[in-house]
Amino acid sequence: MTEEVLAYLQENREQLLEKLNRFLSIPSVSTDSVHKQDVEEAARFVADYLTEIGFDKVNIEETKGHPLVYGEWTGADSAPTALFYGHYDVQPADPIELWESEPFKPEIREGRLYARGASDDKGQVFMQLAVFEAYMKVHGQLPVNVKVCIEGEEEIGSEHLYEVLKAKKEQFSADFAIISDSGMVDTGQPTILYGLKGFTGLEFTVHGPSSDLHSGIYGGVVRNPAMAMAHLLATLKNEEEVVQVEGFYEGIDPLDEGERKLIEEVPGEDYKKTTGVDQTVSEKGYTAKEHMMARPTLEVNGLYGGYQGEGTKTIIPSSATAKLTCRLVPGQEPDQIQQLLVDHLEKHVPDGVRLEIKREPLSAKAYKVNPDHPLIQQAGQALEQAFGKQAVYARLGGSIPVVEWIDSIFQMPVVLLGFGTPEDRLHSPNESFPIENFYKGMETLVYYWANIKETRL
Amino acid sequence: MTEEVLAYLQENREQLLEKLNRFLSIPSVSTDSVHKQDVEEAARFVADYLTEIGFDKVNIEETKGHPLVYGEWTGADSAPTALFYGHYDVQPADPIELWESEPFKPEIREGRLYARGASDDKGQVFMQLAVFEAYMKVHGQLPVNVKVCIEGEEEIGSEHLYEVLKAKKEQFSADFAIISDSGMVDTGQPTILYGLKGFTGLEFTVHGPSSDLHSGIYGGVVRNPAMAMAHLLATLKNEEEVVQVEGFYEGIDPLDEGERKLIEEVPGEDYKKTTGVDQTVSEKGYTAKEHMMARPTLEVNGLYGGYQGEGTKTIIPSSATAKLTCRLVPGQEPDQIQQLLVDHLEKHVPDGVRLEIKREPLSAKAYKVNPDHPLIQQAGQALEQAFGKQAVYARLGGSIPVVEWIDSIFQMPVVLLGFGTPEDRLHSPNESFPIENFYKGMETLVYYWANIKETRL
Repeated sequence: MTEEVLAYLQENREQLLEKLNRFLSIPSVSTDSVHKQDVEEAARFVADYLTEIGFDKVNIEETKGHPLVYGEWTGADSAPTALFYGHYDVQPADPIELWESEPFKPEIREGRLYARGASDDKGQVFMQLAVFEAYMKVHGQLPVNVKVCIEGEEEIGSEHLYEVLKAKKEQFSADFAIISDSGMVDTGQPTILYGLKGFTGLEFTVHGPSSDLHSGIYGGVVRNPAMAMAHLLATLKNEEEVVQVEGFYEGIDPLDEGERKLIEEVPGEDYKKTTGVDQTVSEKGYTAKEHMMARPTLEVNGLYGGYQGEGTKTIIPSSATAKLTCRLVPGQEPDQIQQLLVDHLEKHVPDGVRLEIKREPLSAKAYKVNPDHPLIQQAGQALEQAFGKQAVYARLGGSIPVVEWIDSIFQMPVVLLGFGTPEDRLHSPNESFPIENFYKGMETLVYYWANIKETRL
Repeated sequence: MTEEVLAYLQENREQLLEKLNRFLSIPSVSTDSVHKQDVEEAARFVADYLTEIGFDKVNIEETKGHPLVYGEWTGADSAPTALFYGHYDVQPADPIELWESEPFKPEIREGRLYARGASDDKGQVFMQLAVFEAYMKVHGQLPVNVKVCIEGEEEIGSEHLYEVLKAKKEQFSADFAIISDSGMVDTGQPTILYGLKGFTGLEFTVHGPSSDLHSGIYGGVVRNPAMAMAHLLATLKNEEEVVQVEGFYEGIDPLDEGERKLIEEVPGEDYKKTTGVDQTVSEKGYTAKEHMMARPTLEVNGLYGGYQGEGTKTIIPSSATAKLTCRLVPGQEPDQIQQLLVDHLEKHVPDGVRLEIKREPLSAKAYKVNPDHPLIQQAGQALEQAFGKQAVYARLGGSIPVVEWIDSIFQMPVVLLGFGTPEDRLHSPNESFPIENFYKGMETLVYYWANIKETRL
């Protein structure tokens, strides 16, 4: 069944690439109202493609922001039903002068397709749709039932997605979800993400005197808010990178040997090359990879207070502010962790200053699926068939809010099957996607859907 | 001898005030090249006045910046010789819209003379000159020998003063120096400053990754420079306000009971009112007044790193920077203290980040004269004669570089006899000076010079 489909994709390489280029040429920048019509055009492109493939109930669903494109094909009888999620909106192209070719005129150089959205996420959305096209053209049907949900607000926080999914729960419900909006840990190393971190944060300001004071006249009299902030920050995490907030690690499953082995198998990143640091640091008792993938983190994202210009200004600042975020793992409730942080800061704030806390309203729970789940194992097998190399199983230190929403609304597993590479320069000038992954990724999907057809969930 | 001089000042109140107003009307803003001619005009005003009084060798000495006015009167035979230092330049008037009357059109409201420079330092320079005028007019001579040095660059760091004083050491040398460029601890409370703090500082930057990193991808892998900076700052001073830098307090004379009593006699400031803080903090074992006047301080003047905009950006900052300054007391060498800070930071910097230190090139040694010194005691007596109230003896938490230069070049004591008040708003809109202090200050100076005439130094 798969051979003819692969042959179709092979024969139509040029046409498919040309069609992808049309999609990539639409500057569907969701954050900029100047591009409102472009965003609508990209939505129409997706809707037209779904109709052309043979999807039913194709609809451009209006939201209070940019529309979301829906379509479904449910002719596979008792086979599983998948919800495919992706997004057709892209990041702005600025700074435009750093692009070597125009961001919305796709160009192939040295095996890579350069364009805004080539990897994130138009290119990967297109691969899924092209595979559906191939199955329909060759066999007149898909191996599984598929519901498609392609939104236009991912790059601006998916502001209206949650309410649409929740309001139309029945329409979107499926046996599992699949997302191709991620990458492989290394070029040529097929990867399955089976976990994402959760997220919470807050900003705190230490208030001291009502205005900046002369350090000669008030030094030794008034508590310095910048120093008080430093003391407070230092209580949060020790130099062994262990968070000192009471209860922070409570309820987290210990990292078992099986998972430590999975993590060890993920090829290591050359951190010196990618970050410029000579030396990694990680939580005492864990390797850097383990900490990044499977242990929670607490980071200062920014801080400021007092005089920040050139030279010296001898003041005691009136206030100082720090921004904190945590990446969470399963077992940690974002709201509860935020409360522990608040309690910790309030407990440790020195006298003579006043603490003001702004809780970050956005949060996300961590997500993790058992790597032994058949949906995941089938993805691993499909990757191996296409890339000729065993897939690694990785957890991501980052968060993808839609995954948590799908999990919480539908209680269905999410398969993160992405084909990007660390060199894709998402959100940056000269975004690109390797042509080889375009074809191998489609090949993977052809195998995957065929494998899933037979899988008992 | 003093009665006729006081009578002269009394009879010429209007003319003197009118002359002071002419001086204050010249916008001699030294930092702004637009006012170069105004600065020169103010210098000429001083030089003309000295000539008019009867000073010899009156000269506008050119420097690489603004000129300095010199003059001397040395007809007092064996009486002591005083070097009177002051400055004729002023701070900019910005923000001009906050002034209730024009900064360079002096106006009296509710017993105060409002004008830029009214207190700092044209008004106080003028008082000294007016007293010399009165002595010369009434007696044809001054009670003591006087050398006058009025510079035009005090508000921009006295950039060229040191080299002039050093190059013309003989010309400027005297038995002691007197400066009226300071204030009283409270309105109506005559004050003698007998000590100033020294000064040193540095800025340090903690460098981590070569650019801001995604906290999801690199959290748990890379040392966060903002957190590392917080840890470093927290090692510098504990929450009992005791500096933890090894050797910081070494060589400082303990605060003896006599001086603790002097400090206790200085009226306390209502810190809640002046700073807005509910509670003062000070070095363990010392009161706030003791710490401010007589113990060294270490303050964070400013810090910054990472994302400082609204909301959240989940990054690990590439670097974080803090600016530190110390106020020093006698027994502490500024260069040595700076070195101790550098050593401390280098010793405590955690691994995984790199420390960059910029040493503040400016420094000052602390200055202190024995409050029992006859020059000081005579000042106290003159203040009491004029204000009818016993003077308090205070040390200032701030630094006045010229005092240290005079001390180091000439090894002569410096008398700081100032008549400003805490309400004068130096460097701020609506600078003013109490009219009463204008007259009582001149009265003080009349007594002082008469007292000094008889003093054996």
